[in-house]
Amino acid sequence: MSKVLITTVPFAVKDNKPLKMLENENIEYFINPLGRKLKEIELANMIDDFDALIAGTEKISNEIITKAKKLKIISRVGIGLDNLDLLSAKKNKILVTYTPDAPAPAVAELTIGLMISIIRHTHQANQSMHRRKWHRYFGKRFSEITIGIIGAGRIGSGVIKKLGALSPKKIIVNDIDKSRLVFPKTNILKASKEQILKEADLVSLHLPLTKKTRNMISYKDLKLMKTDAFLINTSRGGIVNENDLIKVLKQGHLSAVAFDVFESEPYLGGLIGIDNCLLTSHMGSMTEDCRTKMEIEATEEIVRFFKKKRPKNLVPDEEFKNKFPSK
Amino acid sequence: MSKVLITTVPFAVKDNKPLKMLENENIEYFINPLGRKLKEIELANMIDDFDALIAGTEKISNEIITKAKKLKIISRVGIGLDNLDLLSAKKNKILVTYTPDAPAPAVAELTIGLMISIIRHTHQANQSMHRRKWHRYFGKRFSEITIGIIGAGRIGSGVIKKLGALSPKKIIVNDIDKSRLVFPKTNILKASKEQILKEADLVSLHLPLTKKTRNMISYKDLKLMKTDAFLINTSRGGIVNENDLIKVLKQGHLSAVAFDVFESEPYLGGLIGIDNCLLTSHMGSMTEDCRTKMEIEATEEIVRFFKKKRPKNLVPDEEFKNKFPSK
Repeated sequence: MSKVLITTVPFAVKDNKPLKMLENENIEYFINPLGRKLKEIELANMIDDFDALIAGTEKISNEIITKAKKLKIISRVGIGLDNLDLLSAKKNKILVTYTPDAPAPAVAELTIGLMISIIRHTHQANQSMHRRKWHRYFGKRFSEITIGIIGAGRIGSGVIKKLGALSPKKIIVNDIDKSRLVFPKTNILKASKEQILKEADLVSLHLPLTKKTRNMISYKDLKLMKTDAFLINTSRGGIVNENDLIKVLKQGHLSAVAFDVFESEPYLGGLIGIDNCLLTSHMGSMTEDCRTKMEIEATEEIVRFFKKKRPKNLVPDEEFKNKFPSK
Repeated sequence: MSKVLITTVPFAVKDNKPLKMLENENIEYFINPLGRKLKEIELANMIDDFDALIAGTEKISNEIITKAKKLKIISRVGIGLDNLDLLSAKKNKILVTYTPDAPAPAVAELTIGLMISIIRHTHQANQSMHRRKWHRYFGKRFSEITIGIIGAGRIGSGVIKKLGALSPKKIIVNDIDKSRLVFPKTNILKASKEQILKEADLVSLHLPLTKKTRNMISYKDLKLMKTDAFLINTSRGGIVNENDLIKVLKQGHLSAVAFDVFESEPYLGGLIGIDNCLLTSHMGSMTEDCRTKMEIEATEEIVRFFKKKRPKNLVPDEEFKNKFPSK
C-alpha cells in the first residue's frame, strides 16, 4: 500500500476532500502531528517510510532526500521552491510537482489590503486603540502615491491588475522577464530596481527566493528608498535582509512595512515589537478557496502518480537553474 | 476685525494654506488649544467672542448657539451634521456650510482596506505576531463573499465602484433613495435592510446619523446576521448600538468587525480589548489630500462670507428634516 506523508499544515481542515481522494485510492496518509512547520531533523526522522510527500515550506535538503529511500514524488502545496533541493531530487529520480496558479489571487488580494492598511496606518491605529490611546493618524491615498512592483509574475501581475482599478498615481514595475513589462495603461511603466527604490512611495515584492534574489533588498537598497516610503513583502523571507530592515526602521527610516514572510518561520525575530511593522503569519494563500484548491491540486498529483499517469504540474526545468544552493 | 474659532483638530498641520487664506483676508483665528474634540462646556466657554466657527464633530447644541451672540456662520470641515442643532442655527440666523464631497474618496478607500483586513484577519494576525504567537488565520476572498452595502450616497457608491473592480461574488445594496439603486453590473442588486443582514457575509454601513438611523443596527439586527459575518462602520457612531454589539461579540457571534466611528469619541468603550475588533480613530477622511481639501473648502466659505459673497455649500434644506433632535 502506498504511503503519503503530509507535512504542510493546516491540511484539509476547511474541506476534507483531499483526504477523501487519498482514501478512495487506498493511499495511506499520515499528517504532520506537530501542527507547525517541521524542522529538518523532525522530517528526517519521519521520511524514510514514505513513498510520497505532500509538502509545505519546510526544508527538504539533500540529506533528507538521501534518507528518503522510498520517496518517488514530492508534491508542493504552493509555488515557492526555495525550501527544496531540486537538483538532489532530480539526481535521486524523485518527481517534484507544485501548484503555481492556485495561490496567486489570494496573495494579490491580501497585498492590496496590506497596502491600504499601511498607507492609512490602520494597524497602528488599531494597536493604539486597544491600548486606550486615541490618535488620528494621517494617511495617504493611492491617487497620491507611486507604487513600485518588483516581480511581475503570476502574483505581481495580479496585484498590478487589481491596483489599476483603484486609480493609483503611477505604478512602476521591474521584472527580469522583459516580456512581462508591457502594460495597457499609461500610468503603468517599466523601471529599473534602483529607479523603483528611489521613486516609489510604496514598494511591493513579488519574487521567488533564488540565489539571485536572496538579500536582494539589503541596507543600501533600503536607504535608497524615500524616508517616508512603505515596503511590503508577501513573497518569500530572505529576499529582504531582516537585520538591515530592523536597523533602518530603528533609524526612523521608512513610514511603515508589511511582512507576511520571514527568513525563519514561525517568526520570532526583531521586527516584533516595532509598531509600524504590520506582521502576518505567511497567510498569503490562506483563504478557504485558495488553500482548498492548492490542497486538491497537490493531492491530485499524488493520485495521478500512483495511477501511473503523468503529473500535471511538474516543476519546469528553468526552476532548476534558479535553484538556491542548500545553506 | 472678524474672528474665527477653529475647533476641528488637527488643522492645517500638513498644509498651512487655510491659515494663510485667513491671514490674507485679515481674519483673526484661534485654534482649539486642547488638541482633541471639545466637550460642550469647553466650547460654551470659548464661543461668545467669535463671528465664525470652523467646526469638526464636537457637539454644537442649542445652548451653545444661544450663547454664541456674535456667531454668523458655522463651516463644517466634513459632511456629517449629527453634532449640530441645525434648527437652532436657522432660528438664530446662523449660516451652516459643509464639505460634502471632499471626504468621500478617502473614506471609500479606507473601507476597502478594512474589508480586506477583516476578511483575512490581518489585524488579529498582527496582534498575535506582536505577542510572539504564530497562528495562520484562514480568511476569505471577495470572490467568495456577498457584500451588503447600507447607504449608497457619496461614500457608499464610491465603495461599490471600487469593490466592483475587485470581483466580489455579489454586492447587495439598500438606500432610502431608490434612484441610487440602479447598477450597471449584474452582480450588484438592490435588497432590503433585512435581506442584507441575513444574506451578506460582510455588511458595510454608509449612512448619516439621523433620528431614523440612530440604533438602526441593534441586538435583533445583529442576530439576523450570519454567525461568521463581518461588520464595518466608517460612517457615524450611534448607528450601531455599541452595547448590543459587545454583547453579541461576547456570545461569539460575528467573525470580526471594523469600526472607525463611535458614539462617543475619543472612544474608550467596551470594544477595546476584543481581539476581533479592528478599531481605528475616526480616520476615514484622514488622508493628506482629502483633509487638506476639506480644510481649504471650509475656510473658503468663511472667506466668502466675510467678503459678503454667498457660501458655496450651504447645508441643503433636506438635512433639516433629518435633523437628529438634541439629546
